[in-house]
Amino acid sequence: MRNIFALLPLFFLFQAAQAQVVSEAEHKIIFQLTEGDSEVHKKFIRQINNILSAAPNAHIEVVTHGMGIDLLKIENNPYEKDLSLLTEQGVKFVICENTLKQRQLSKDKFLSLAGFVPSAVLELVIKQEQGWVYIKAGG
Amino acid sequence: MRNIFALLPLFFLFQAAQAQVVSEAEHKIIFQLTEGDSEVHKKFIRQINNILSAAPNAHIEVVTHGMGIDLLKIENNPYEKDLSLLTEQGVKFVICENTLKQRQLSKDKFLSLAGFVPSAVLELVIKQEQGWVYIKAGG
Amino acid sequence: MRNIFALLPLFFLFQAAQAQVVSEAEHKIIFQLTEGDSEVHKKFIRQINNILSAAPNAHIEVVTHGMGIDLLKIENNPYEKDLSLLTEQGVKFVICENTLKQRQLSKDKFLSLAGFVPSAVLELVIKQEQGWVYIKAGG
Repeated sequence: MRNIFALLPLFFLFQAAQAQVVSEAEHKIIFQLTEGDSEVHKKFIRQINNILSAAPNAHIEVVTHGMGIDLLKIENNPYEKDLSLLTEQGVKFVICENTLKQRQLSKDKFLSLAGFVPSAVLELVIKQEQGWVYIKAGG
Repeated sequence: MRNIFALLPLFFLFQAAQAQVVSEAEHKIIFQLTEGDSEVHKKFIRQINNILSAAPNAHIEVVTHGMGIDLLKIENNPYEKDLSLLTEQGVKFVICENTLKQRQLSKDKFLSLAGFVPSAVLELVIKQEQGWVYIKAGG
Repeated sequence: MRNIFALLPLFFLFQAAQAQVVSEAEHKIIFQLTEGDSEVHKKFIRQINNILSAAPNAHIEVVTHGMGIDLLKIENNPYEKDLSLLTEQGVKFVICENTLKQRQLSKDKFLSLAGFVPSAVLELVIKQEQGWVYIKAGG
């Protein structure tokens, strides 16, 4: 019996670590990011990490367009490591090719972890039609 | 017959008061509020009241996170009475616990009418999966 | 054979012009516009044109409320021609009557191409219930 009581603290520690998991389901979440502000990006990355803690089996795709594509630029990107870690956990990041044309930017200015879609809005539409849940990121 | 005509003005008055009801259906609406600006909160509260006039049987849940949780703070809250009236009409307000941790705020800083969810985004996702319609609040 | 090769450049030109069509499906997209900023309106109009290029059979409705209704005002509207062209392609623009009351504006201040709905949010809700996909416009 003493052994069992000795294990109690470990048990509660385990509970605490598990407490943040809210759902084991395979949620499919598609985010729209249009803001270029670095502070918004910081909060957004934290938010994705929070979701992966609460719902570790969630599928997440981040669709960036407008200034939002700056989240994925190579130059002066303070979040490269964070984005890389999220990608390793299965999060997908894509850039709108319409925005690239509009802003006259080439694909080689962006992190190799980023994918591309012809139209961000259409990607958001098609994914929703396929049952993905839409969330607009940012303030 | 004169009696019936005498009632006509009352009839039109009744029509006018009813005119704003657009739908009797039990719509399920989930709002995401991320902005802390008091002017935004004012407009948002008016918006919810408008919906309840147009769709009196609508179920409404407001999910706040980031600066949006300030809508529900106790200190210097000009909207406490409005929020209380909305709650009486069945509107539910919830606060993101991830935001509380991040902003290092305790639950007792918030109105007792507010509920709590572990993750705002996950709440928005799960409710949408259950057929609730998502609207992003604010500008 | 020489004739066929002579046609090759034309073929590639045709491919390039077609390349932007991503989907032939009849997507149903409902946009919410709440921002009054002219620069936001400019980007938004470009965005709708991009969608119609990528998905020429898409059904698009733009629901404006708050400051967003300024997109459709008559006075000093730099986008009247663009909006008119979009309307000809089937895009529908509607204005929230709750906003008109709130901002004390009359319907005759707005372009004749604009329609009206009693409540913007309820329009967004009902359309989503009918299978339309929701996208929040703007930054």
